Amino acid sequence: MPEKVILSVDALGGDNAPDVVLDGVKAALAEDENLEIILCGPAEVVEPFAAGVARCTAQPTTEFIDMGEHPAEAVRRKKDSSLVVGCRLVKESRAQGFFSAGSTGACLAAATLVIGRIKGVSRPALTTIVPSPVKPVVMCDIGANADCKAEYLLQFAQMATIYMEEILHVKNPRVALLNIGEEETKGSLFAQEAFALLKAQLPNFAGNAEGGDILPANFDIFVTDGFTGNVCLKTIEGTSKTLFKTLKEIFYSSALTKLGALTIKGGLSDLMVKVSPDTYGGAPLLGVKGACIVGHGSSNALAIKNGIHTTAEIVRTDVSGLIEKTVSKP
Amino acid sequence: MPEKVILSVDALGGDNAPDVVLDGVKAALAEDENLEIILCGPAEVVEPFAAGVARCTAQPTTEFIDMGEHPAEAVRRKKDSSLVVGCRLVKESRAQGFFSAGSTGACLAAATLVIGRIKGVSRPALTTIVPSPVKPVVMCDIGANADCKAEYLLQFAQMATIYMEEILHVKNPRVALLNIGEEETKGSLFAQEAFALLKAQLPNFAGNAEGGDILPANFDIFVTDGFTGNVCLKTIEGTSKTLFKTLKEIFYSSALTKLGALTIKGGLSDLMVKVSPDTYGGAPLLGVKGACIVGHGSSNALAIKNGIHTTAEIVRTDVSGLIEKTVSKP
Repeated sequence: MPEKVILSVDALGGDNAPDVVLDGVKAALAEDENLEIILCGPAEVVEPFAAGVARCTAQPTTEFIDMGEHPAEAVRRKKDSSLVVGCRLVKESRAQGFFSAGSTGACLAAATLVIGRIKGVSRPALTTIVPSPVKPVVMCDIGANADCKAEYLLQFAQMATIYMEEILHVKNPRVALLNIGEEETKGSLFAQEAFALLKAQLPNFAGNAEGGDILPANFDIFVTDGFTGNVCLKTIEGTSKTLFKTLKEIFYSSALTKLGALTIKGGLSDLMVKVSPDTYGGAPLLGVKGACIVGHGSSNALAIKNGIHTTAEIVRTDVSGLIEKTVSKP
Repeated sequence: MPEKVILSVDALGGDNAPDVVLDGVKAALAEDENLEIILCGPAEVVEPFAAGVARCTAQPTTEFIDMGEHPAEAVRRKKDSSLVVGCRLVKESRAQGFFSAGSTGACLAAATLVIGRIKGVSRPALTTIVPSPVKPVVMCDIGANADCKAEYLLQFAQMATIYMEEILHVKNPRVALLNIGEEETKGSLFAQEAFALLKAQLPNFAGNAEGGDILPANFDIFVTDGFTGNVCLKTIEGTSKTLFKTLKEIFYSSALTKLGALTIKGGLSDLMVKVSPDTYGGAPLLGVKGACIVGHGSSNALAIKNGIHTTAEIVRTDVSGLIEKTVSKP
């Protein structure tokens, strides 16, 4: 039987909050009997909801952090926002992990400022499972640290390795450095320095990868600075979306093509699920104490539910404890 | 009637050289009566070919630069390679532009070391037309400069603007800085500095773009450092390839789906042409004197032909002269 876990969830996170969050919380609780959720948000939203759902507690809050606000400033000022309160519950050990589909910047700021880093971790890193039709791969960092030092990348690789082993059950995952050529001497000065460090200190380092290696899943983990990782991830999403949209137009262009489309509807749906970000429902900020998962702003209830399950899994497998034991102290 | 143009072409450039190069040269000459080509390569290849093709001259060479060699070293050592000789013909004004589908690194080294930079240009930049199903967009730099200063990006933007105006006939193209957020304050320190410079000095600057803006063609030109640009371009190619491969598997999964596939065969072929890198056939290295176009290593004869036409077009519209007049001198 899975261990009992208590999570705090931001009821106001995401473009379709609170409705999809409430649906996601309900579904997650129904699927996991050993899960408890403290739902943070306006009293009029969370109290009636919690009253009707088993193992859900309401934590009324009075403030809200908007997507447009300056993350760190908003976190410092709005101490009674659902986001800050959710993180504080983890800080105070009343919850073991936190999930929000709110502003990524504000989540990062709240997690770092309120919950705090694991001892020895230089920079927490936003980590995602890239939905590939071949097999899931992990990319880290995807945007928490636009400017990086080589030693951060070594820690990113170590943290992502633990995440992939514990959550995706891939043992000894092959880590690649995202670069612009396969040879050791390729890339920017930063990439060359990172290559040398990873080669010297990471046993599961497999060498340089290029952008074209990601979706074919030629490696398990792609480690990079948060600038490149973010551009890359959004490029994958934008490319998939545009191609699917164009395909749809082709399918809808005549009665005959519509008929043709019917024959592959099943296969195409499977593919869409495989490449959908909702399948995993969130990106953990590895390196902060406890667990903190940031969902897509556009999350639907399924994505919220899956994000909550992932948060619980990270707590149960003690990813943070393993990170503390493993990362190379700078 | 188009102006007479003389180009040098590397017969040994590309994975399928010299066969596809010869086919491409023949086709290009047949389609453009005012084009002359000096074909550089082994005597036994280029001499019999040139003897049978109008407006083609053989330039026998004795050396060959391999994909695996260190670019600058190979260019310095192998002075009688097809690549170096092709560039020297431009340097000596015997040809006005050069095309090769050989090693990108070696082409960049030869163009810079042998032909030389346009006065005032800090760093030549590899520029490509990204094949989007929506409309073609331009990305610059895609790999010539892994480490950049903000002022290089201003020049990249100016050069790419001229290229897009002259070759794609898009007047006053909207330039975006590839970044990890729309707001002015987003991104790495480098991106913030580049944003400020572009905003102050580039009249057609339209702001920050994210990776997800590229394939939907939300801007005309995406300017970035060569590291990010290369990762991004290869990510687009890898994503498209993987999705098309998966689609093909879906289509081939049963007799019924094969029948369904037939109904959209035409539309799908059109899409494949639109997103194929062969449609434009090469990336110009903007900022070197004359014109220098680097084709994909995997170029087929169509890509070679189109690459040669683009090279001639760059010469005829005097892109290099316009660049010399336009770029901000550092």
